[in-house]
Amino acid sequence: MPSKWEVFFYLIKQNTMKVAVVGATGLVGTKMLQVLEERNFPVTEIIPVASERSIGKKINFKGKEYSIVSMNDAIASKPSVALFSAGGNTSLQWAPAFAAAGITVIDNSSAWRMDPSKPLIVPEINAGILTENDKLIANPNCSTIQMVVALNPLHKKYKIRRVVVSTYQSVTGTGKEAVDQLMGERNKATGGLTHYPMAYKYPIDLNVIPQIDVFMDNGYTKEEMKMVNETRKILQDDSISITATTVRIPVMGGHSESVNVEFENDFDLEELKQILLQSDGVKVVDDPASQLYPMPMDAHEKDEVFVGRIRRDESQPNTLNMWIVSDNLRKGAATNAVQIAEYLQANGLLK
Amino acid sequence: MPSKWEVFFYLIKQNTMKVAVVGATGLVGTKMLQVLEERNFPVTEIIPVASERSIGKKINFKGKEYSIVSMNDAIASKPSVALFSAGGNTSLQWAPAFAAAGITVIDNSSAWRMDPSKPLIVPEINAGILTENDKLIANPNCSTIQMVVALNPLHKKYKIRRVVVSTYQSVTGTGKEAVDQLMGERNKATGGLTHYPMAYKYPIDLNVIPQIDVFMDNGYTKEEMKMVNETRKILQDDSISITATTVRIPVMGGHSESVNVEFENDFDLEELKQILLQSDGVKVVDDPASQLYPMPMDAHEKDEVFVGRIRRDESQPNTLNMWIVSDNLRKGAATNAVQIAEYLQANGLLK
Repeated sequence: MPSKWEVFFYLIKQNTMKVAVVGATGLVGTKMLQVLEERNFPVTEIIPVASERSIGKKINFKGKEYSIVSMNDAIASKPSVALFSAGGNTSLQWAPAFAAAGITVIDNSSAWRMDPSKPLIVPEINAGILTENDKLIANPNCSTIQMVVALNPLHKKYKIRRVVVSTYQSVTGTGKEAVDQLMGERNKATGGLTHYPMAYKYPIDLNVIPQIDVFMDNGYTKEEMKMVNETRKILQDDSISITATTVRIPVMGGHSESVNVEFENDFDLEELKQILLQSDGVKVVDDPASQLYPMPMDAHEKDEVFVGRIRRDESQPNTLNMWIVSDNLRKGAATNAVQIAEYLQANGLLK
Repeated sequence: MPSKWEVFFYLIKQNTMKVAVVGATGLVGTKMLQVLEERNFPVTEIIPVASERSIGKKINFKGKEYSIVSMNDAIASKPSVALFSAGGNTSLQWAPAFAAAGITVIDNSSAWRMDPSKPLIVPEINAGILTENDKLIANPNCSTIQMVVALNPLHKKYKIRRVVVSTYQSVTGTGKEAVDQLMGERNKATGGLTHYPMAYKYPIDLNVIPQIDVFMDNGYTKEEMKMVNETRKILQDDSISITATTVRIPVMGGHSESVNVEFENDFDLEELKQILLQSDGVKVVDDPASQLYPMPMDAHEKDEVFVGRIRRDESQPNTLNMWIVSDNLRKGAATNAVQIAEYLQANGLLK
């Protein structure tokens, strides 16, 4: 039973939950505001931050207008938590300043993810490692998050040896310019406006681009190596072998993934499906007879990771094929960040 | 040195190369006519066949008009070769009648592909098994053809143990109705006409459908099992293990494939690339530094199989990732069929 004073201070604390959203005008930042509102995170004040040219512009949150402020003004406002989605360079430059001021940063960029001193969190999997000393928490890559949510319960039960994944990624993962490019190309094709940005080097409408992020020396893209390295860090198991091919397609609503998993141990397919059915954050959609399987059109604006086409890989023992779809702007970014904030708040880890 | 008579009869024969195209008004049939013309196959007369309701309609070939005729009229015209692309049931019903009349059938449907008495041919790989007794020759599935053209030279050198393939397939593989559905959905989205056929159970515009063809009892689709079984038959090696996930995306111009190949033997990556560079029908497009890789927009209307993103799979020994793109209506269907006809003609196997 808490004392009256404890209740009083708890309520005071509840009453001053300031939340900064850095990169508030981008696709992910906008989605963060939407998700904070939808999930009723106990925000008392939003502090929206964006680039210099947006300062003073208004954004709306729960029917109230807020002015976009600068980084320094946001730090001076002392929010309890800052959700960052403004690119790696901004995070490298500013996240430490927020953290030094005692503000817990949940960072959606890749800047800090592989830093051994920074936790990389998918709440269903490893939020338990968080302490009040973690002032800079990394939100994983979108394609990694949805894959590990499905892999984690299976890894615990059957131990994963190797994963071969090929992705089918939405243009929303690139940002507003990519959506504008796709829509511009579609309009042009029907005789509409011909001015639009080129977020990609090539047309994306009716096309497929087998490159996401820049190429590394080993011939893989950075996105592909994120899937390898972040998965191992989140599942805390460097023995898992992973190879990825990440691909951009003219789709919105979510990323899809064709995932082939070899386990150390054999599995019973029905038992494996039951495990997924009972896993946090997973929704199984798998009924071939009724042509039911996960698709971006159904995952759009949902928080779950949808798993289907669950079948034994007949080409070798102990191996599974499955199809994983999730809204990359929600569970792949905004929702996962807000869920981290929810965990911190529920466990008294936010100042 | 052939005798004058031999030359005379050869020229007579050359002068009477009648070619029937069954299903002449479909996407593949239309492409067969285009490819026959472009590749200058020595056609003296086209005999176009289509469904009852099209009989009497005209099609154009090399600037000349031809009337669409019935199956029986086509057989009575005694063409040297009949290219079939009118669906499995039509092939089951009619191909044997053509063959019995001495007409060589090259059939694009799945009806005869796995019949042990019927050759399943990709000319670069196994045209050598054809004899003048083969009157019913099967053209493989589109996604299989482009994969085996790239796999065959590597299998010969390094011996394939296992393949994990995920496909990104164009709506043109389904036929005209699917193209109409996609275009209709796009027009509707911009306020245009709202009437269009539904070739798929779900919208395909901006969506991904992880189902191609019907589901089998093992949870795989027929398309996925075609890739398994046809590959083994064409490469004449049932020891190759294959698992496939076949997926429809809102794309035109060609199918793409993410292919992971485990070999019995290790390889040198540069040597492997050289083998592909020198392989018939393969065009290597692989320069990450210049962001060059195969894409449907570049494969469209080409006859080659484009291979790129060639890199060692670092997750286990002797394993490779690559990305294969080809125009599914050309090498995946029409061109492969015409190439079979070219082989038969060049080797005196056509009557």
